[in-house]
Amino acid sequence: MITLYDLLFEGDRRPSPFCWRTKYALSHKGLQWTEVPMAFTEKDKIAFAESKTVPVIKDGDEAVKDSWAIALHLERAYPEITLFKNEATRKYSLFVNGWVDTTVNGALFPMVVGDLYDRVLPKDRDYILESRGSRLGTKDLGAFQAAAREKGQPAFRATLEPARRVFKVQKFLAGDLPGYPDYILLSPFLWANSVSPFKLLAEDDPVYAWRERMLDLFDGMGRKAKGA
Amino acid sequence: MITLYDLLFEGDRRPSPFCWRTKYALSHKGLQWTEVPMAFTEKDKIAFAESKTVPVIKDGDEAVKDSWAIALHLERAYPEITLFKNEATRKYSLFVNGWVDTTVNGALFPMVVGDLYDRVLPKDRDYILESRGSRLGTKDLGAFQAAAREKGQPAFRATLEPARRVFKVQKFLAGDLPGYPDYILLSPFLWANSVSPFKLLAEDDPVYAWRERMLDLFDGMGRKAKGA
Repeated sequence: MITLYDLLFEGDRRPSPFCWRTKYALSHKGLQWTEVPMAFTEKDKIAFAESKTVPVIKDGDEAVKDSWAIALHLERAYPEITLFKNEATRKYSLFVNGWVDTTVNGALFPMVVGDLYDRVLPKDRDYILESRGSRLGTKDLGAFQAAAREKGQPAFRATLEPARRVFKVQKFLAGDLPGYPDYILLSPFLWANSVSPFKLLAEDDPVYAWRERMLDLFDGMGRKAKGA
Repeated sequence: MITLYDLLFEGDRRPSPFCWRTKYALSHKGLQWTEVPMAFTEKDKIAFAESKTVPVIKDGDEAVKDSWAIALHLERAYPEITLFKNEATRKYSLFVNGWVDTTVNGALFPMVVGDLYDRVLPKDRDYILESRGSRLGTKDLGAFQAAAREKGQPAFRATLEPARRVFKVQKFLAGDLPGYPDYILLSPFLWANSVSPFKLLAEDDPVYAWRERMLDLFDGMGRKAKGA
């Protein structure tokens, strides 16, 4: 029995992009799980795993933290349906993991941080204003977001150019079928969608069409998630 | 017998990053080649391959253009030493190819374009000023370059963060040994080095250490190339 500790926002939203990677990895392997939602300010719930961030999973007696470590754990523990067909797929995924966490998320975060703040649980508001505010150098997240969107949208779309080029020759980053690199890249879109109505992609963008294909997977798991 | 058509700059410099990818692919496979250097304004030399850009190779009777197509050709024609161990390595390489061509080269190009102009063959100067100038919206490439370097160096280094994260757990992008993703990422550094003395990386950057390892390969092929 697998338990996933997930971040909770207002209206039962679950934006954490790192938890989404784990949910897609679990679904890919056909595994069931139960979720324990928690606030940013309830980190005591995941102290047992010596973690301060989600995802954390409890798999039987084993506690695993960090989405990448969880993917590797699931691959070892449930090898029947592989997430990484071979070592090269794992290395490809590791590269995409770093690319999304830095280049893609870095371009996306400033454009939705104000909307994100508006949707955190009331008890988490001060924490978010303090932690994100000090990172961004302002406490007016709404004004920061508005300024970021002006230049930010074309810059964000430009970061996706490597994926766009891949989609010229194959349907998914992983090839003809979706794989962990695709789940990683989908995660910031699900994160943004759950907190912000801001349009990230043009409808004629090949990344838009890819995202539609991704949202169809696993009975429309991502599409059914509560949006902004 | 393989012939490689390569771009020639002043002082026998050969900066083309796309030709470097081909040279490393050939060396990886232990293949010999001869080079035909040409100016930007001697595109008639590669008209036989219906190409306007290098690299072009002539392999026996076959003409192949574009570094990615050449890598695939070499893999088919000389399968003994593989460039792509399996399909996943090829897909990983395709992604890295797009990432370097857009994100990495996009951040690098403005910082060295003035130096590049200073080192093209005299007969190519007008062509470069016209083509690069119209792309950048200015003919004062030196001033453009100086302005780009101010914000550009930290922005360029930031684009390399995905690689930096990979180097925390393995020596090369491809794994314990270098592979085509590494040859792709090395190519913009060789390109810049051949035209510009501008310091792209700090010496304590893990990407710097990786670049040193890469420059050692194949009897120091990249290290021996004539710099700025």
